[in-house]
Amino acid sequence: MAEYAAQDLAQAVIDRMADAPNPRFKEVMSALVKHAHAFVREVQLTPDEWMQGIQFLTQVGQMCDEKRQEFILLSDTLGISMLVVAIDQARGAAARTPAPDEQPPTEATVLGPFYWEGAPELAAGADIAEGAAGEPAWYHGRVTDTAGRPVANAALDVWSGDAEGFYDLQKGADAPMQLRARFRTDADGRYSFWSIKPTYYPVPADGPVGKMLRGMGRHPNRPGHMHTMLQAEGHQTLVTHLFDADSPYIDSDAVFGVRNSLIVDFGKHAPGTAPDGRVLNKTWYDCAYDFRLVPAA
Amino acid sequence: MAEYAAQDLAQAVIDRMADAPNPRFKEVMSALVKHAHAFVREVQLTPDEWMQGIQFLTQVGQMCDEKRQEFILLSDTLGISMLVVAIDQARGAAARTPAPDEQPPTEATVLGPFYWEGAPELAAGADIAEGAAGEPAWYHGRVTDTAGRPVANAALDVWSGDAEGFYDLQKGADAPMQLRARFRTDADGRYSFWSIKPTYYPVPADGPVGKMLRGMGRHPNRPGHMHTMLQAEGHQTLVTHLFDADSPYIDSDAVFGVRNSLIVDFGKHAPGTAPDGRVLNKTWYDCAYDFRLVPAA
Repeated sequence: MAEYAAQDLAQAVIDRMADAPNPRFKEVMSALVKHAHAFVREVQLTPDEWMQGIQFLTQVGQMCDEKRQEFILLSDTLGISMLVVAIDQARGAAARTPAPDEQPPTEATVLGPFYWEGAPELAAGADIAEGAAGEPAWYHGRVTDTAGRPVANAALDVWSGDAEGFYDLQKGADAPMQLRARFRTDADGRYSFWSIKPTYYPVPADGPVGKMLRGMGRHPNRPGHMHTMLQAEGHQTLVTHLFDADSPYIDSDAVFGVRNSLIVDFGKHAPGTAPDGRVLNKTWYDCAYDFRLVPAA
Repeated sequence: MAEYAAQDLAQAVIDRMADAPNPRFKEVMSALVKHAHAFVREVQLTPDEWMQGIQFLTQVGQMCDEKRQEFILLSDTLGISMLVVAIDQARGAAARTPAPDEQPPTEATVLGPFYWEGAPELAAGADIAEGAAGEPAWYHGRVTDTAGRPVANAALDVWSGDAEGFYDLQKGADAPMQLRARFRTDADGRYSFWSIKPTYYPVPADGPVGKMLRGMGRHPNRPGHMHTMLQAEGHQTLVTHLFDADSPYIDSDAVFGVRNSLIVDFGKHAPGTAPDGRVLNKTWYDCAYDFRLVPAA
């Protein structure tokens, strides 16, 4: 049959995949076609709206380069990235039987578009603010597994924006790495480093996704957070953030990434000597957080 | 509330649009978010698959330039373009009450990615093949409204690929227009022109959409067709094709654009004199088709 009625078109596309070699690809694409057609039928999308959609997606693709990923930003702001994270963590939890006395693992959140591979590995306690504007903050805690055993030599990647909310990746083609590093846990699973207390900031809103957010009547802001990624032999990789409890937008993260268990009260301290011996002549903060990793399957 | 369960995330995104200034944009984006999240949940999309999706969409966007629109090709091959066309024509039909004796209007199909604005306007009967390889074909008929009244001075844009199935737009940055022109109907609504009998051809399969089609186990071919667009004062614009009934792939158009009412038997003729007086020393064809336009609202 050459001709299909509108309501039969999705099935016609799916039927055309009868010989798809990879069953999972066939499954994913079949569901995609089914839902995409259901969307178009539900809103009775007009040709003009369709063309606006084509132009929007084209602009999103053409905004991407080595340092900017507008499609990830689109996925983030539509809550899709966070949904994928939530599904993945639920899948991991369902695949194993926790010991009766075990603690829940640290929750994951979005990777975001600002991870930059190859940050320098620094000694525990180093200050990655390197004089950048912002309020000093001391991050410290332990990395254990869900049974409470310390995870030694775990690689802890950390990254954040500066006091104005800008990441190094946003500062032009030649801008060097800033406010990012890798640390290692010690034999007892302990980590510590200095950086700044993270501030809220807008996701990049000068491109098509920013225009979409304005059309949606939404603000583009994320509450202040420190990105972390933990990789350790014998454990599942954890990508998450630590959120500042006092930050504006903590209840309306533009990428829906906040989880209650990741919100930390940053302790405020008068000028003086910090527990690691550093002497500060201005107010400083501390962020205490223990991570729990899931053993690898 | 800062945190959302996976199944509540779509609604959280939708709720964030409470202040969207344009109600239609809000409606469309709310439905998009609902269906996109339903898709991700249904297939339990993994982080790796999500990243493949991000990379695919980025490649599609970056494949686009002034002469290539890979997102339209994606929409076409997923049947979405044809769905939008079908919805639009049904909407147009629902918005008016046809006279009891009126004939159904000519059906629409996809515009496709190869329309090039500004083709030369030629005199009726001109040959746009200009020596291009291919079997000569004489296209002729009338343009009327649905009541059978002739539509004079209608602009009929026509375009097709060559005998190898390639459009001018695919032949490099500097390639001139070929096999496309605009004609005008006469006082009786008649049109005629010479071109070639269209051949089947693959949609551009050297980019990400081609890779997707191979993953789907699908061929990339469209049956032979002559593109037409009709614009006339006081009438709705019609974008459609005339399909060659004898063409391979007439039952499996890669973009799902075939409609039974658009399939034409091309008459085959021995060398000799055509009705318009042209003398041909080889086999030629004729394609007789009458278009019926819908009066504008």
